[in-house]
Amino acid sequence: MMTLSKVRGLILSILCAVAPGAAHAEFNVKEVGSFYIGGKESTVSGQPVSEIATSPGMRPFKYDPNGEFSVGQMYVQYVKLAAPKSKYPILMWHGGGLTGVTWETKPDGRPGWQQYFLSAGYDVYVSDAVERGRATWSRLYDGAPIFRAKKEGWELFRIGPPDSYNADSVKRVAYPGTRFPTESFDQFTKEFTPRWLTNDAPTMAAYQQLIDRVCPCIIIVHSQGGFFGYTAALNNPDKVKALVLLEPSAAPDAAKVEAGKLKDVPILALWGDNIAGHPLWANFVQPSSRLRDAVKSAGGDFDWMSLPDNGIRGNTHMMMMDKNSDEIADIVQTWLTKHGLQ
Amino acid sequence: MMTLSKVRGLILSILCAVAPGAAHAEFNVKEVGSFYIGGKESTVSGQPVSEIATSPGMRPFKYDPNGEFSVGQMYVQYVKLAAPKSKYPILMWHGGGLTGVTWETKPDGRPGWQQYFLSAGYDVYVSDAVERGRATWSRLYDGAPIFRAKKEGWELFRIGPPDSYNADSVKRVAYPGTRFPTESFDQFTKEFTPRWLTNDAPTMAAYQQLIDRVCPCIIIVHSQGGFFGYTAALNNPDKVKALVLLEPSAAPDAAKVEAGKLKDVPILALWGDNIAGHPLWANFVQPSSRLRDAVKSAGGDFDWMSLPDNGIRGNTHMMMMDKNSDEIADIVQTWLTKHGLQ
Repeated sequence: MMTLSKVRGLILSILCAVAPGAAHAEFNVKEVGSFYIGGKESTVSGQPVSEIATSPGMRPFKYDPNGEFSVGQMYVQYVKLAAPKSKYPILMWHGGGLTGVTWETKPDGRPGWQQYFLSAGYDVYVSDAVERGRATWSRLYDGAPIFRAKKEGWELFRIGPPDSYNADSVKRVAYPGTRFPTESFDQFTKEFTPRWLTNDAPTMAAYQQLIDRVCPCIIIVHSQGGFFGYTAALNNPDKVKALVLLEPSAAPDAAKVEAGKLKDVPILALWGDNIAGHPLWANFVQPSSRLRDAVKSAGGDFDWMSLPDNGIRGNTHMMMMDKNSDEIADIVQTWLTKHGLQ
Repeated sequence: MMTLSKVRGLILSILCAVAPGAAHAEFNVKEVGSFYIGGKESTVSGQPVSEIATSPGMRPFKYDPNGEFSVGQMYVQYVKLAAPKSKYPILMWHGGGLTGVTWETKPDGRPGWQQYFLSAGYDVYVSDAVERGRATWSRLYDGAPIFRAKKEGWELFRIGPPDSYNADSVKRVAYPGTRFPTESFDQFTKEFTPRWLTNDAPTMAAYQQLIDRVCPCIIIVHSQGGFFGYTAALNNPDKVKALVLLEPSAAPDAAKVEAGKLKDVPILALWGDNIAGHPLWANFVQPSSRLRDAVKSAGGDFDWMSLPDNGIRGNTHMMMMDKNSDEIADIVQTWLTKHGLQ
């Protein structure tokens, strides 16, 4: 006898087999470009002036580290199609210690979600949040930056269980059946970027400016981006036409927000494998779980999908990079289509 | 009577009027993506472990700043056309304290050179050099980073003369007839990124890996990128089919390199206005001038074009962002076409 979850998995696989089709097909582009948004001007003073040369053989010149600087801006890169099939663009917001590269070509060289959703007919905006990637960074943030070691990436992203990382790549032990391309893990770690723990406010302010500029839209978020995505939807329920959350690592407190504001925002949360019983993830999932319950109690449309409960096993926290990431993208595309968003 | 430079300017404007045509037209894309190249693994030890939370409401978890890290890699983003008109891709290498954003949409919102050359039919690879932008950065570099203040950007990039910057934007004095969109200068400064003075070696190593991977190619460099571009051509004269230098800020010592290696590499150097007599730029231009003479003595094809000497006045160090940047791109496109590269 089939369990409910197996039936759902079967329905899903039928849907996915027929719906999305040509992942990564060619597309006609009207414009590829970028802009900065958010930030403010800050001033540095009292630092010593020195002489520097910035290339070999160059005559030294005066370097003055004092003065006015742009601080706290966000970078947004877009590809606009000549004939988008969706009337709403997709905004892709990355997670902690990462950048917009999350959505680009995967560490193993196969096309990523940016390419997938462009091929599917959406304009796509990929951002580097404040302090990350092309957003650049500043001396003027509060506190010291933190740095993600390879071990943390391997274990926090559930490629392997706690204490399964080894500096010697052949001795690393992944979860059985992991979908992460483990041979490309060291390549993946080249994306890791320093971060601060003090920039949530300018980050959210910049995301709000982004929404004001380019929405109505669909927002896809990952991990740390979850908190920003939930907040964006709560503050802009008219402009966020759908919110797709890939393992949101946190959520606004369900007891303190007006969850009813989200009742007309379709929400899909996707969760990978090996969360139950995991010392960190079993906790990280709770704020989203509570917010889901509050949204559903208010009459909202919050789809909560555990991939393993639907027969898809081995996905990590980086499901947009896993070997079956097209299959995961198909689930999102099918869900968006079902909600009339393409 | 017309001077020689006026005649050259006239010929140029006729060429440009007929040659390039549809700047920024739509284009059909096969793939948009990225990869990391270069770098090595480095280890940190002896740092204190702490507890952190990376989002509001999250249960704190252990943060260990020790372990293995990827250091010194470069980021490369590409757009591959479905039907490129050129058999060679263009690689765009940015200058100091900047990133690949140099080549994207300009600070005033108009399309940049990435879009121009995609529309013209070239595959385009835009890189963020080691330590910049999406290449991310590391604690493990030698020395301290330096930071570009707005004043340095305004004056070093010759938007205004020395000591013409003012913190109050309405009090800034630009060179008469500047082509930089001065109303967008503060927006431009959001691109400025911290840099180190110690990463030339891993940067050049990563550029070499990039050449090994995607060339034969055309390389367009700006400012600090000039030294790397000259070096790349000297080391790969068979693979660098053309080198276009926008105000290279330095060059390998003409007395120490084998300039004859460049005799079959077409080279175009473009220089903006207000260089003669400038306390820094009158010097910065010299190493390139000496290398040009050596290359030409060896029978090479090194075109040296001062824009004002050709009747194009007011261009700054950021000529790919100036208001007439399409006109400058037209000069490059005409020159590439003349050399059989499209």
